[in-house]
Amino acid sequence: MADAVRVALIGFGTIGRGVVRLLHEQQTSLDRRLGFPLRLTRIADIDLESDRGVPLEGIALTRDWREAAGADDVDLVIELVGGTGIAREIVCETLRSGRGVVTANKALLAHFGPELYEAARAAGADLAFEASVGGTIPVLRALREGLCADRLRSVVGIVNGTCNYVLSEMREAGESYASALKRAQDLGFAEADPSFDVDGSDSMHKLAILVGLAFGAHLGPNDIATRGIQALQPVDLEFASRFGLRIKLLALAKLREGTLEARVEPMMIPEQSLLAGVGGAMNAIEISGEFSGPTLYYGAGAGSLPTASAVVSDLMELARALRLGAQGRVSPLGCPSLRSLPLRSPADGVSEFYLRFTVADRPNVLAGITGALGAQGISIASVVQPERHESGATPVVLMTHEAKEPGVRAALAQIDRMGDATAPTQVIRIEREIAGA
Amino acid sequence: MADAVRVALIGFGTIGRGVVRLLHEQQTSLDRRLGFPLRLTRIADIDLESDRGVPLEGIALTRDWREAAGADDVDLVIELVGGTGIAREIVCETLRSGRGVVTANKALLAHFGPELYEAARAAGADLAFEASVGGTIPVLRALREGLCADRLRSVVGIVNGTCNYVLSEMREAGESYASALKRAQDLGFAEADPSFDVDGSDSMHKLAILVGLAFGAHLGPNDIATRGIQALQPVDLEFASRFGLRIKLLALAKLREGTLEARVEPMMIPEQSLLAGVGGAMNAIEISGEFSGPTLYYGAGAGSLPTASAVVSDLMELARALRLGAQGRVSPLGCPSLRSLPLRSPADGVSEFYLRFTVADRPNVLAGITGALGAQGISIASVVQPERHESGATPVVLMTHEAKEPGVRAALAQIDRMGDATAPTQVIRIEREIAGA
Repeated sequence: MADAVRVALIGFGTIGRGVVRLLHEQQTSLDRRLGFPLRLTRIADIDLESDRGVPLEGIALTRDWREAAGADDVDLVIELVGGTGIAREIVCETLRSGRGVVTANKALLAHFGPELYEAARAAGADLAFEASVGGTIPVLRALREGLCADRLRSVVGIVNGTCNYVLSEMREAGESYASALKRAQDLGFAEADPSFDVDGSDSMHKLAILVGLAFGAHLGPNDIATRGIQALQPVDLEFASRFGLRIKLLALAKLREGTLEARVEPMMIPEQSLLAGVGGAMNAIEISGEFSGPTLYYGAGAGSLPTASAVVSDLMELARALRLGAQGRVSPLGCPSLRSLPLRSPADGVSEFYLRFTVADRPNVLAGITGALGAQGISIASVVQPERHESGATPVVLMTHEAKEPGVRAALAQIDRMGDATAPTQVIRIEREIAGA
Repeated sequence: MADAVRVALIGFGTIGRGVVRLLHEQQTSLDRRLGFPLRLTRIADIDLESDRGVPLEGIALTRDWREAAGADDVDLVIELVGGTGIAREIVCETLRSGRGVVTANKALLAHFGPELYEAARAAGADLAFEASVGGTIPVLRALREGLCADRLRSVVGIVNGTCNYVLSEMREAGESYASALKRAQDLGFAEADPSFDVDGSDSMHKLAILVGLAFGAHLGPNDIATRGIQALQPVDLEFASRFGLRIKLLALAKLREGTLEARVEPMMIPEQSLLAGVGGAMNAIEISGEFSGPTLYYGAGAGSLPTASAVVSDLMELARALRLGAQGRVSPLGCPSLRSLPLRSPADGVSEFYLRFTVADRPNVLAGITGALGAQGISIASVVQPERHESGATPVVLMTHEAKEPGVRAALAQIDRMGDATAPTQVIRIEREIAGA
């Protein structure tokens, strides 16, 4: 096939299998859309034995990624190895050789993005990574081209399906965190080791990529305040409902007056908002621009075939550019270079807060709590103190009016010193600036 | 500015004003993203007197569109005249001259799309129309590139903000159709003559465009069964709520076994679905693919600045292609040519139906209705017959199980012959295959 654009796939796992299947099943349709053949010629993986149940005729297999990526019959390379070790070598060396790369590797982009973008620019090779955030959802394309005329203000997303599934189960079935996570693992929505999902790291990586595209700004992993969902209890989701709110693990970045705030944490959002309606393992990203207003993008954030759809759409874009000699038509982030923006700590802004105290059932406990908050100038919007618990430890829930976090923390420290708390206090920020709310 | 890509704007109304403002305010940012200047050099409109409140320095104004579009200092043309008369000339002649065109004109594309796509192809000029469907939402880009690897199955959208606003008001405030429409006009969400919005024509035009992109299929305006929202009453929205449903004017197209069903009508959808949560004048489009699964795109469907954002993003794409000599990189619909697909009438499928009868308050009326439905093999899922109305005319609501429309129509004809109905029966299809439901 002399006129084909030829592709090597490095990493033949779940997504890789989906890519091979899609390229096979859609071959006629893709060739027709492109006007030229797009062919997988090489696959590299350390495991060449397992049967992936996909047709491999005409594809040369190897354990040596360099043999595949560097072959004469390869024009573009898909990196689906994952991680930041060998994957970094694969992407960097391939770009330097002048070949375009498609990757789904969010950790790699979050940690080494600037190095990769520069390698692509210097070599005049394309680098695309639609599948790295929001799986199948073409949200990076929306940022890079659809909203490229606008001045964007915020990006707020549910970008980890495991966490969203666990929170949905905890709310709907009243299940504990541990049992909901176990079920997610049984159903294949969570990895055997789900640490990077539940502790927020995965969302943080994706937020770093989104911030690059939305604001043209570079954020290192340490620039994003990150908290996971492990400490949430069903009772928190239940209380949220009483106030017309839902708890979601959100990745959030806002640009205000030239400073950038970026954080990943469980937040309470209005239950009638669109993001609150994103259930199960689905993802959604809301973007606000000065001209476009709020827009939202929803779809499967993971899974073999949905992710493969995003990978192959990137592949088609790179193949077209290659054919037309139009590499670098749009830079990977839609802007020529990344800037450093001053960061604003979440603590600098004001929020309403949900505070759940677990306290000994003694007289005047509530008076002590409200007094400590009042001393910090924090006013209370409502209090819920359910009937006495059998255990003798009672949850007391307070919703504050808008307050600064340092004041809240100071009050909590004082309350701790009073010795009434029998467990750590749960603090969750309330976010009302959400579309459809 | 020798190295600038130069643009003529034809039609200086609401959206045109937004485009001028965006290009002015974002000039530095756009030039930086593009790597070359993008400049508005000419504007044509029949009204050159009105003050649009936007800066016009360095822009030549004329009443003659040919003078603007055909000028030596113009590379790309924006058509914002609207309608299918002069706009058709502008777009066709400009494309034939080899210049790329950006338009927001859904009526023109729905009626004369194939002629325009062919003119673009023959001249090697680009034609882009992101703003024609869903205003600011980059949903056409999603279809053309983001989901281009997939085999799509359905497109379902809320694509008319006026209707969605009116229905939202009718539901939330119990307002009549007429009074909600009046309010929409007062607030600028509806035109002085809103006929094409409320009768479904505007949604039908947009659906024809979506079908071209999603399925590569050509649909003429007469191929889409279209019904508007004029006959809906607040009581219908109220009954929908009782059944956990919402009424939305949906533009829907489904491809099944090689045949295409396309219709625009008010439908009832589950209230927990994402589309049901799209309030006010907002738009959203849900797309389902075999690989990608369901994805959804939400945002402002109209308005000067949101629409301008989409127009200018198209302009940037065309300017980049021009610079790189990469015109025609992706064809306007993402596929080289349109196919004709066999059409399936909505009447051929099965649906659940909502039927609201307005009947004289006489004994055995309900028995007559259920008997007529039963005779057609239509089984009833539930019946609501509120307390007797003062007027003596009572609404009787039936929700059917899945049934074929011809059977329903035959039963309704028989019920009409019984002479108990004092007003036309309201028939609304129920659609449960919606994301998030």
